[in-house]
Amino acid sequence: MKFGVIFGANSYEHEISIISAISLSKIIDISYFIFIDDKKNFYLIDKNNLKAKYFSSFEFQKAPQLILKHKGFYQKTFLSEKLLNMDVLINLVHGADGEDGKLAGILDFFDIKFIGPRIEASVISYNKYLTKLYANDIGVKTLPYQYFKLNTPIHINNFPIIVKPTKLGSSIGISIVNNQDELDYALDIAREFCDEVIVEPFIKNISEYNLAGCKINNHIVFSNIEKVQKNDFLDFDKKYLDFNRNKTINTEVDISLEEKLKSNFSKIYNDLFDGSLIRCDFFVIDDEVYLNEINPIPGSYANYLFNDFHTIFYDLAKNLPKQKQIKIQYNYINKINANKLSYKTH
Amino acid sequence: MKFGVIFGANSYEHEISIISAISLSKIIDISYFIFIDDKKNFYLIDKNNLKAKYFSSFEFQKAPQLILKHKGFYQKTFLSEKLLNMDVLINLVHGADGEDGKLAGILDFFDIKFIGPRIEASVISYNKYLTKLYANDIGVKTLPYQYFKLNTPIHINNFPIIVKPTKLGSSIGISIVNNQDELDYALDIAREFCDEVIVEPFIKNISEYNLAGCKINNHIVFSNIEKVQKNDFLDFDKKYLDFNRNKTINTEVDISLEEKLKSNFSKIYNDLFDGSLIRCDFFVIDDEVYLNEINPIPGSYANYLFNDFHTIFYDLAKNLPKQKQIKIQYNYINKINANKLSYKTH
Repeated sequence: MKFGVIFGANSYEHEISIISAISLSKIIDISYFIFIDDKKNFYLIDKNNLKAKYFSSFEFQKAPQLILKHKGFYQKTFLSEKLLNMDVLINLVHGADGEDGKLAGILDFFDIKFIGPRIEASVISYNKYLTKLYANDIGVKTLPYQYFKLNTPIHINNFPIIVKPTKLGSSIGISIVNNQDELDYALDIAREFCDEVIVEPFIKNISEYNLAGCKINNHIVFSNIEKVQKNDFLDFDKKYLDFNRNKTINTEVDISLEEKLKSNFSKIYNDLFDGSLIRCDFFVIDDEVYLNEINPIPGSYANYLFNDFHTIFYDLAKNLPKQKQIKIQYNYINKINANKLSYKTH
Repeated sequence: MKFGVIFGANSYEHEISIISAISLSKIIDISYFIFIDDKKNFYLIDKNNLKAKYFSSFEFQKAPQLILKHKGFYQKTFLSEKLLNMDVLINLVHGADGEDGKLAGILDFFDIKFIGPRIEASVISYNKYLTKLYANDIGVKTLPYQYFKLNTPIHINNFPIIVKPTKLGSSIGISIVNNQDELDYALDIAREFCDEVIVEPFIKNISEYNLAGCKINNHIVFSNIEKVQKNDFLDFDKKYLDFNRNKTINTEVDISLEEKLKSNFSKIYNDLFDGSLIRCDFFVIDDEVYLNEINPIPGSYANYLFNDFHTIFYDLAKNLPKQKQIKIQYNYINKINANKLSYKTH
């Protein structure tokens, strides 16, 4: 199995994506590293250059560029182009471009096999408002919320609250707000990143549990569970370092909670996330499980939650959803032409 | 304003897209015609060749091919590549590839200005189940429905019903079902196209009204209203011919209905459909308006519903949403390096 990994792109999580790729390369044997810069150029990165500084110093610009076409990425040769010979591409672009459905759309359009969320799964998990609609419809609880466009007046009755831009991950732009005075500042921060916010009650010391998994042979394979240790909520710096974790984590939880977490995970994963390995972050209040968020491309694919990540990841690569290919035969145009109807342009 | 239009691609509506492009070319001055074949090659089509038969006879394969990169489509020249000099690209790929979010993802990723639904708008309108969730959440009524995966048993209590694959337009795969015996056949038809269906009550002689519009300078500009004349429901052949309409249509409706249709349209369009000209198809039962479906890329952009389509379309082209560009400065990696934390690969 020849893996490629694609990372970088134009996102607030560009740097996290680089760290994530470096981290994943230590666990999975990856043949091709495709880096997307903020101008959407594709570079083929030599494994020996896979160091954070190679990117931050812009040395990557010396690497050969790739062209995206049907079936894959092509490298220019002296007289022609050569298709990179990869079986499965791993989408490791966190945040915008990678998790918002753009890259999924590109890869599906060009019929490139990949691990990662498909378009609908991306859109539903990237947009926190749509995550709420979806979760509540399939019977997964979430915290109560209000959804506001930032160009409309916002009235809050009960504090404290947590204000989240609808469309960013990694805690970017998120604020805890204790009173009306703090609200304006929080909205200004959010406005930097997004035009709309989700507002939820802020519950101090809420229990948070993470569970990852993917579907293999029509069954969901679950990771270990992690009870998240945190102060208030994970900030970006903390989460950033998190993307480089490499010790296997396993929090013992009682069987009834484990079952509840897994049952909620299964409802969410459903068929929607076929082809991807996702991590769901849950809150637990009075033994009730609430979905906080879906990470359809968790940092380094949450390998630290699995006892045998390597095997599961290879199995996932063999269980990717197939796209329907339609053979275009022009039956309708031929029929219309035969009926002597004509569609002339002039 | 130099327009390009992109059409074709791998979809059951490939042929409709060709007819739609031919039809639109008679109304809007289009500088570049970009045809996508079912293998995802891009061809630059000479306007003189814009005839249905040019495609159905596969003559298009002689046209020059284009390369997709940052900022647009490039044509190979003797020694280099030349960017097609277009201001706005019109997405006219109906159905899969065009309306499901793939093309939106590609165009946004490569920073190409276009008329058409963005990714989220595409996903929400293409998937009839998500359309229901969205409409009901924003206070737009829809007919009651049941949502089934086709690999699960399906029980129906009341007939007649209408069975629709969740993810296809143009009436493809849709059946009216009067009893249990007809159901299996209808599900087999749907299964050809999609893995899941929406089931709604079938209401004979239901009134259907179409209304199109787009947002210009923060206000929605509405089209005329059409009361749809039909027998039971539009079949594919009938709809196919519809894509070539060129007479302006305007059904007089009473002012209170007009207001209700427009108010529902505005709720749906919201900000979600910024950059696109959509047509909403509504049912009316006892003076209540119900959303049937959102067409985010209506055939020939529903030009037949506008008295001055030309002006509106040009104005829309000047009112496209801008994407946030992020300047990547590697602050985090630089900070971490400064702290002497190192991320070595070996």
